[in-house]
Amino acid sequence: MTHEMHHAELIDGLLAGARVPLARAISWVENEHPDAAAILDTCFARSGRALRIGITGPPGAGKSTLVTKLALEYRRRGETVAIVAVDPTSPFSGGALLGDRVRMLELSGDPGVFIRSMATRGSLGGLAVHTAQVCDVFDAAGYSRILIETVGVGQSELEVAQTADTTAVVLVPESGDAVQAMKAGLMEIADVFVINKSDREGAERAVHAIRSALELRAKLSEWRIPVEQTVASTGRGVSTLADRFEEHLVFLGETGTLERRRRLRLAQRLEDLVRARLWARFREELAPDAWDEAVASLAARRETPHQASGRLTGGGGAKG
Amino acid sequence: MTHEMHHAELIDGLLAGARVPLARAISWVENEHPDAAAILDTCFARSGRALRIGITGPPGAGKSTLVTKLALEYRRRGETVAIVAVDPTSPFSGGALLGDRVRMLELSGDPGVFIRSMATRGSLGGLAVHTAQVCDVFDAAGYSRILIETVGVGQSELEVAQTADTTAVVLVPESGDAVQAMKAGLMEIADVFVINKSDREGAERAVHAIRSALELRAKLSEWRIPVEQTVASTGRGVSTLADRFEEHLVFLGETGTLERRRRLRLAQRLEDLVRARLWARFREELAPDAWDEAVASLAARRETPHQASGRLTGGGGAKG
Repeated sequence: MTHEMHHAELIDGLLAGARVPLARAISWVENEHPDAAAILDTCFARSGRALRIGITGPPGAGKSTLVTKLALEYRRRGETVAIVAVDPTSPFSGGALLGDRVRMLELSGDPGVFIRSMATRGSLGGLAVHTAQVCDVFDAAGYSRILIETVGVGQSELEVAQTADTTAVVLVPESGDAVQAMKAGLMEIADVFVINKSDREGAERAVHAIRSALELRAKLSEWRIPVEQTVASTGRGVSTLADRFEEHLVFLGETGTLERRRRLRLAQRLEDLVRARLWARFREELAPDAWDEAVASLAARRETPHQASGRLTGGGGAKG
Repeated sequence: MTHEMHHAELIDGLLAGARVPLARAISWVENEHPDAAAILDTCFARSGRALRIGITGPPGAGKSTLVTKLALEYRRRGETVAIVAVDPTSPFSGGALLGDRVRMLELSGDPGVFIRSMATRGSLGGLAVHTAQVCDVFDAAGYSRILIETVGVGQSELEVAQTADTTAVVLVPESGDAVQAMKAGLMEIADVFVINKSDREGAERAVHAIRSALELRAKLSEWRIPVEQTVASTGRGVSTLADRFEEHLVFLGETGTLERRRRLRLAQRLEDLVRARLWARFREELAPDAWDEAVASLAARRETPHQASGRLTGGGGAKG
């Protein structure tokens, strides 16, 4: 395999299930390589078959171990599994690398599993855009279950979680997170709640707290959000959790929710790309010194950000 | 004071130091009220005098207590203090509200302190834009020290931290965060490191770990990043920390760094506003059904996101 592999060759390879072209294609997508567009166009056209499962939760909830055990469970069921571990980009959470290494050991050598860590946030709409694109590549390459692991610590990480078809929120018994999660809009994100490390004290209490909170809310859909207990380190509850995901997939399909939800995701992706293009074109069309001059006029307080942005974009349009 | 206060009246009030118009002006900014633009234009023109200090760090580092004690210290020094506590918007960190209440007790009744929690992320560029705008309002209202507290857990929170003139990263002794912080690019953000709760074991070790890491790096500037120990709950080290901020302010001013840094911040604010305006105008000019049709063509795989975004923006421009 030469370094100067042509993208057509690479696409043929990854569609045939070869790992080296797949790895390279993903790198190209992540790095916004000039040939990434051709790869993405092909992969997008062939995507839509894989179930994309988002796994999110606070640092220390045991997400990496859970994802590993879920992958093993899906392999037993005959599915192929891609794992997309999204680096939180936060300076304060550093479990990702270690988690990866542990995972590697248990899953290494299985040709039906592909693990990829993502960190790069490029110019074209950030991490959520890249994650969705990488999932398209895995989808086109024939992986049937894609597990997207994110540390749910900030807004951008939640946006990544929301690129999935179905999303599990993983908590631990002793965290007071359960009630917080209810407050902070996690109800809108979670299709499944998981209390991991539930061999620890307080697991039942955490489950009940979440169930109570769920019952207080008006029923927004026919899907009754399950609250599952797992002990990822031993594998306890993982098979049941996989069942729940599959049940949710059936539910999504039967009710038309899957189509509606995927359409919303596509609209968001389109918006992200359009926004990036508009900005890129704006910069291309701007006179060479106009930007620096505008910044200088702000620094000198001759203009306000509101006035300068209006002037540079030709006035009108947005208020603000 | 009537509900239908005119913005001119409100501006006069806040510039004169009145608290009710100030509170209302900030709400208008946060909610993107139609009259917010007029307020912001006036406030921006009168801003630039306050020192903006960012305080960031992981949940549980004691940032709220530290900010409270810093405010008290600054009051003793005759400064007026605005506190902008940025809600992390994360479903998993919920200390903000409690921190606020504790703070209120110690600072309440002092007319030289104004505390504001922020959570709203509007359409015009998100939390960082709003934070900068609210700081402009405090600045124009005459507050001389603005403390911007953020939970440094995600990218968007770090962007908020970076709206400040000087930024302190707060860690605790027992966290293994010190080394992680070094890895993850916090060096670029921190002007001052703080080991809070340093009456606990391991504080010296944490200080040395950070100092060693700092020494390994090439000197990028004349500023030698201090690593301070504090016990915010008792106030230990807080006065020294305030000294460091003031020394950094002097350094920033003498070396021209303050002007360069503020210019970078303004450029970022301008970019955020231009991006928001470009998108708003794009949506206004788009034919009513064109967006839904594009999303439908994506769902049917007749077009890819790349193709559709190119078509809708008139081709050319950005690659990707």
